[in-house]
Amino acid sequence: MTTTEAKTGRGAAAEATAVTVLGLGAMGSALARTFLERGHRTTVWNRTAHRSASLAEAGAATAPTAAEAVAASPLVVLCLLDGPAVEQVLGTLEGAVEGRTLVNFTSCSPDRAREFARWADEHGAAYLDGKVMGDPPYVGTPDVQFPVSGSREAFAAHGAALRGLGTVTYHGEDAGLAAVEFLAQVAVSYELLIGFLHTLRLVRAEGVDVPEFAARVAASLPAYPALLTSMAGAVDRGEYAPDLGPLDVQAALMDDMIGHRETRGVEAVRMREVKKLMDRRIADGHGGEGFSSLFELLGR
Amino acid sequence: MTTTEAKTGRGAAAEATAVTVLGLGAMGSALARTFLERGHRTTVWNRTAHRSASLAEAGAATAPTAAEAVAASPLVVLCLLDGPAVEQVLGTLEGAVEGRTLVNFTSCSPDRAREFARWADEHGAAYLDGKVMGDPPYVGTPDVQFPVSGSREAFAAHGAALRGLGTVTYHGEDAGLAAVEFLAQVAVSYELLIGFLHTLRLVRAEGVDVPEFAARVAASLPAYPALLTSMAGAVDRGEYAPDLGPLDVQAALMDDMIGHRETRGVEAVRMREVKKLMDRRIADGHGGEGFSSLFELLGR
Repeated sequence: MTTTEAKTGRGAAAEATAVTVLGLGAMGSALARTFLERGHRTTVWNRTAHRSASLAEAGAATAPTAAEAVAASPLVVLCLLDGPAVEQVLGTLEGAVEGRTLVNFTSCSPDRAREFARWADEHGAAYLDGKVMGDPPYVGTPDVQFPVSGSREAFAAHGAALRGLGTVTYHGEDAGLAAVEFLAQVAVSYELLIGFLHTLRLVRAEGVDVPEFAARVAASLPAYPALLTSMAGAVDRGEYAPDLGPLDVQAALMDDMIGHRETRGVEAVRMREVKKLMDRRIADGHGGEGFSSLFELLGR
Repeated sequence: MTTTEAKTGRGAAAEATAVTVLGLGAMGSALARTFLERGHRTTVWNRTAHRSASLAEAGAATAPTAAEAVAASPLVVLCLLDGPAVEQVLGTLEGAVEGRTLVNFTSCSPDRAREFARWADEHGAAYLDGKVMGDPPYVGTPDVQFPVSGSREAFAAHGAALRGLGTVTYHGEDAGLAAVEFLAQVAVSYELLIGFLHTLRLVRAEGVDVPEFAARVAASLPAYPALLTSMAGAVDRGEYAPDLGPLDVQAALMDDMIGHRETRGVEAVRMREVKKLMDRRIADGHGGEGFSSLFELLGR
């Protein structure tokens, strides 16, 4: 992307909202660059100034302080290191944020996002919390997901500008919900992936070709969207068909699985937990129900 | 399927191998019925005789003892409750198995499968161990997977007959490898699914609609085949690109994730483990590598 292209990007013809981006790490820089490409007048600020240089070359205005950067635009995007960094920067803004819309794309907990929303409210600003699911080079394509939550009014006003960044979904007035979505999606992903890595240890210990095994697992994945949808429906209704077969039958193979892993030096933490849950459901008279019914025993 | 259809099934014209099926639970019955449909002369036996009736109606021969059933066919399929049940039935066969090929589709551990292979060898029979991944109603379609391992010669002779049951893959001479494949595939599946159920607890505690969340997870799954393949390649080579981002960055959000789950009464066992592994890799100077590099710390 050259400077010229950036200045004549496809959003340039429209009356695009002026945007300020606070924080120019890899992700913040990608956001700012994409706003420029979409034709937004873009002002940037970073705690250490050297990061602004290449964005200034691409057409961004730079500001010496966060407060001055915020004064430049009605829409202010924060993409900082973490929650404490956001807190610190907000502390320098005070009066500057009045009448602005803050969109915080910094990783933080749902409760922290709710605190920021209260702070914004007390200082006369609208607040949206957003999370970024994807890598900086793909910002500006639909492959990057931006769950967003908080002020519905602010989303109505600025959703179009945000959609220039990727696939934006609005999760509700509660500012914590974007973080909930992010943490929940990442957790499902990590559960699959750490389980997969442990199992690669197992198959390697048995002399199985690791890439070939992975290819077979990959080939089995197209069955999962329907399975997850059906399991979530069962959980939602509290009615459990024998998905993956009745628990009576599933439980019968767990000892083989646990024993096999342990003889090969591979952990079986989750498999022990699953077996225990299955045994409890069976003892409670639910042996004819499926895997999804284990949900009834989880949490408090 | 009527008796007439069974007798004139599409395999009938070929000189199909006669098959014996020992064990007529839901899966054994589905196997026997499919062999009949494919035109195999099929003999069945079950410990309790009443299970044979509907198969006899469909054209199967019945035998009063397992040994007589085995005498009727060169290819003998076992589909019993568990390993001990196989052991018990084998004990009644002795001389009857000489020259036969045994294909054991009963759930059991890899080591147990290896023991059965040795027993067969000592009694003059060829042995294949197989596992069934799928539900009885789908036997006879490609949706049911049959990993098989053991005697390569026996597989060359009888692979065609077995392929009438579904998608058959041969995993090598070691009779334990089909069970390894089965236990490893099921483990990956259970890891994903138990993690998914825990996370449904989390999103429900936050007031998020469970089916809508599941639909968003389902929509993210098409990205995984490429990711799993690339992670397995990294593991295979021992060279770890920053998949899912560098560990330095990934680790930064783990405390938010763990804290959030625990304040909502949702377990964080795996997330704590992942955080600990990430911290160890970072401390060892691998913070620029990706999630797949955690593999280096797993197992013994």
